[in-house]
Amino acid sequence: MDPEAFRAAGHLVVDRLADYLASVERYAVLPAVEPGSLGPLFAASAPEEPEAIGAILDDYARLVEPNVTHWQHPGFMAYFATTASGPGILGEMLTAGIGSNAMLWRTSPVATELEMVVVGWLRQALGLPDSFDGLLTDTASTSSLIALGAAREAAGLDAAARGLAVRDDIGRPRVYASAEAHSSIEKACMTLGLGREALVRVPVNERFELRVEDLEAAIARDRVAGHQPIAIVATLGTTSSTSVDPVAAMAEIAEREGLWLHVDTAYAGAVAIIPDRRAPFAGWERADSIVVNPHKWLFTPLDASLLLTRRMDRLRDAFSLVPEYLRTLDRDAPVRDFNEYTPQLGRRFRALKLWIQLRWFGLAGLRRRLERHLELAQAFAAWVDAEPDWERLAPVPFSTICFRYAPARLADDPDGIDELNAALMDAVNRTGEVFLSHTRLNGRFAIRVAIGSLRTEPRHVSRAWELLRREAGTLEAAPAGILAPAPAASVAPSPTARSTAGRSAGTAPSS
Amino acid sequence: MDPEAFRAAGHLVVDRLADYLASVERYAVLPAVEPGSLGPLFAASAPEEPEAIGAILDDYARLVEPNVTHWQHPGFMAYFATTASGPGILGEMLTAGIGSNAMLWRTSPVATELEMVVVGWLRQALGLPDSFDGLLTDTASTSSLIALGAAREAAGLDAAARGLAVRDDIGRPRVYASAEAHSSIEKACMTLGLGREALVRVPVNERFELRVEDLEAAIARDRVAGHQPIAIVATLGTTSSTSVDPVAAMAEIAEREGLWLHVDTAYAGAVAIIPDRRAPFAGWERADSIVVNPHKWLFTPLDASLLLTRRMDRLRDAFSLVPEYLRTLDRDAPVRDFNEYTPQLGRRFRALKLWIQLRWFGLAGLRRRLERHLELAQAFAAWVDAEPDWERLAPVPFSTICFRYAPARLADDPDGIDELNAALMDAVNRTGEVFLSHTRLNGRFAIRVAIGSLRTEPRHVSRAWELLRREAGTLEAAPAGILAPAPAASVAPSPTARSTAGRSAGTAPSS
Repeated sequence: MDPEAFRAAGHLVVDRLADYLASVERYAVLPAVEPGSLGPLFAASAPEEPEAIGAILDDYARLVEPNVTHWQHPGFMAYFATTASGPGILGEMLTAGIGSNAMLWRTSPVATELEMVVVGWLRQALGLPDSFDGLLTDTASTSSLIALGAAREAAGLDAAARGLAVRDDIGRPRVYASAEAHSSIEKACMTLGLGREALVRVPVNERFELRVEDLEAAIARDRVAGHQPIAIVATLGTTSSTSVDPVAAMAEIAEREGLWLHVDTAYAGAVAIIPDRRAPFAGWERADSIVVNPHKWLFTPLDASLLLTRRMDRLRDAFSLVPEYLRTLDRDAPVRDFNEYTPQLGRRFRALKLWIQLRWFGLAGLRRRLERHLELAQAFAAWVDAEPDWERLAPVPFSTICFRYAPARLADDPDGIDELNAALMDAVNRTGEVFLSHTRLNGRFAIRVAIGSLRTEPRHVSRAWELLRREAGTLEAAPAGILAPAPAASVAPSPTARSTAGRSAGTAPSS
Repeated sequence: MDPEAFRAAGHLVVDRLADYLASVERYAVLPAVEPGSLGPLFAASAPEEPEAIGAILDDYARLVEPNVTHWQHPGFMAYFATTASGPGILGEMLTAGIGSNAMLWRTSPVATELEMVVVGWLRQALGLPDSFDGLLTDTASTSSLIALGAAREAAGLDAAARGLAVRDDIGRPRVYASAEAHSSIEKACMTLGLGREALVRVPVNERFELRVEDLEAAIARDRVAGHQPIAIVATLGTTSSTSVDPVAAMAEIAEREGLWLHVDTAYAGAVAIIPDRRAPFAGWERADSIVVNPHKWLFTPLDASLLLTRRMDRLRDAFSLVPEYLRTLDRDAPVRDFNEYTPQLGRRFRALKLWIQLRWFGLAGLRRRLERHLELAQAFAAWVDAEPDWERLAPVPFSTICFRYAPARLADDPDGIDELNAALMDAVNRTGEVFLSHTRLNGRFAIRVAIGSLRTEPRHVSRAWELLRREAGTLEAAPAGILAPAPAASVAPSPTARSTAGRSAGTAPSS
């Protein structure tokens, strides 16, 4: 594609995206499609001969755009709602166009040095001391894997060199995290050869926070049994309920026991850019590593995870390999080659989008947006609390509310409440106006409303609450049989969701 | 950023990129900058207040664009030359703008199903049977890590659950790869807890191909010692010399021994889209897993690695975790949730760019471009072979030539030849017109010319050869002291590199 053809097509794509962002509300958040129904819409094989870009982009508009789950939709309140901000998208465009691989300093000097700059910006914004260095990875899964890989080395296992198998000089490695810790911690244990069994799930209190005394007991028990504790993971903002582990007390234990402390605050960490809101994080500055995901609540397009650490040397012990073909010969001074700190060699130039969007928003601008989300969440929590038939299931330290509909008639039927809430969530999602997800807390079904999209306005949050009450009423009025989810084939977007098309332009004021 | 502001800024960015692609030759491929000199050009902290996008993009043009290593430059012949094609960049723009996370079917149905479609397209194009399924990952490092993680499970180690440490029911795991295998295989062993020691580096023959008899002997020796062989890695197109391991014979051994066979053909695999060129791959269809990187020689912007496998179930054994908050409740039919096959949870919508660019190029168009690169490489090899003072150091099965300058006067001074070639490569790179990298073969310094950029034309390849001979002549004419690399501070782009600015528009006819 010659540069002028690229220019012409690029302008078409920009217009397509601008139109999409302006009118995303005309789509149901969750597309009304059946598994397996989309693949057959595409050709079974790649074409032999070139096709015109116009035809391809038309197919994009027809086949792809309507059939994504619309993470850019202001009604997206599932999982952790995230937005690809406008300036972030511009950054991705430049990253793709410049095409540099940030694996070595030499393979893209400014990609490496700007990454160091941006890591510093974020560290300062989060209020962490300059003893923290770090890097950008793709996801929190990778960041936590790197942290635990480094912990393996810091514990003296020499695992990178010798491996873990058939060693009589080490105990069974143990990693401690709360029962509410994210699955990425467990997956890191699987990947790293520690095994799921290495992860000790420490019980939580009624607020879903790790119980410190149980952590201490678990470590003591394992020491007696000859196991080898290597790391503690504190989660500040768990995935289910956004609960906050007592990181200061955990840091105390980690220091006393000589264990690596990793802080997983992939979602909630962003809040620490607001100095007044740093109470939940007090003590995290004693961690060995911290993960915060800009691609969650800092509005960066996938993917961008920030891994901060006070022990870059240990990351390097775990992941550095410098074969001859990657050696830089003509430099006297050592340079930072970021691939030495990661399981992957190739690396995208992720710092660029962060640099652009941190400047475009400004820290004050980001703080304002987070404050708004925090306030909206408090408002929603208050609505739930005010209704006797609704039950909030966890505190709301950040922007996510866990709750359920629990009418008095089902007071003695916890399974019935679960079923009702699963049906309720399904019914609400089928309206197409919002998309909610669920979890289980204390074994019970909990609907989650996660507020975090740049485009979510007060009206979307109140509409979610309206829909929940409306659909709850409908379900209560219906004969019992209807509580089972309708066959998925019958899913269709609600007229309401579709009818917003005409008035949705301009609803994304500042994303 | 409201949609209209995004539209305006997006058009600016597209123009900037089109101009960049049209005139990339005005830059020295490798920017003439010192380590540590770029960071201070940027603000030390993120701004408090928002900045205008125009000012940010101006800074991009001033500080970033000139200071990347120009992977889009037609003179980029280092490592494996790669290009971010125009249609690929358009795909990245849409992926960023749509902002979907392809972790679950539910979180982006078309991202999941289009990934299945595109994996099928690539599989067919490569001539592999439909017993191969697969997925897209970020890099070959991750693809190979996944393959070896699956091999761990297939070997019955139950490592994902139980871990590898302190087990008396398993032997010491062993992975076999040639001495020339990529560092990503070794790094995967480190990450997976197998350890670098688990990797048995099998010797190569004079063509740098794994010696089958040595592989058999190594496995037999390890069995006697009570070790536990789990996988063999065949590399088709090694990183240093692009040598081709005897994959059919290795498949035979893998089947006989009950070992996982992983084929790393991240670079060269693309050639298999040309049916007449499939001879080096004969037997790879018996592999358990194969990695081919579209972001290398299929011109896809970073990142996109294709992992094909006949054993998706084993990948799932190694990497699947389904916590409640990721469970899909309202579907009767099982769906494919790609995160169950990868160490990461979050996933970019990478299929989109592949779908766009496979259609835009057409398979015939891709074949034509690869054929051109293969021919250019043969021409370069012939030039080297024709000059008595130059020595080719490896066969050229694909598009990469390894060679050195070995004047008769240094016939008895191998270290002197190494030093001379290091200085020569440095001198050539300093011209700014091309960028070459090196490796070592049989312990000796080898310059590599890797042809693989969409924008590389015959004139760039002949210019590289011209520069090599010119700089070799200059070095030979110079007093001995000058052979040491000049202090890096003196690096400056050559006038030649700069002077091409005026005539470079339109030099990228079909990228």
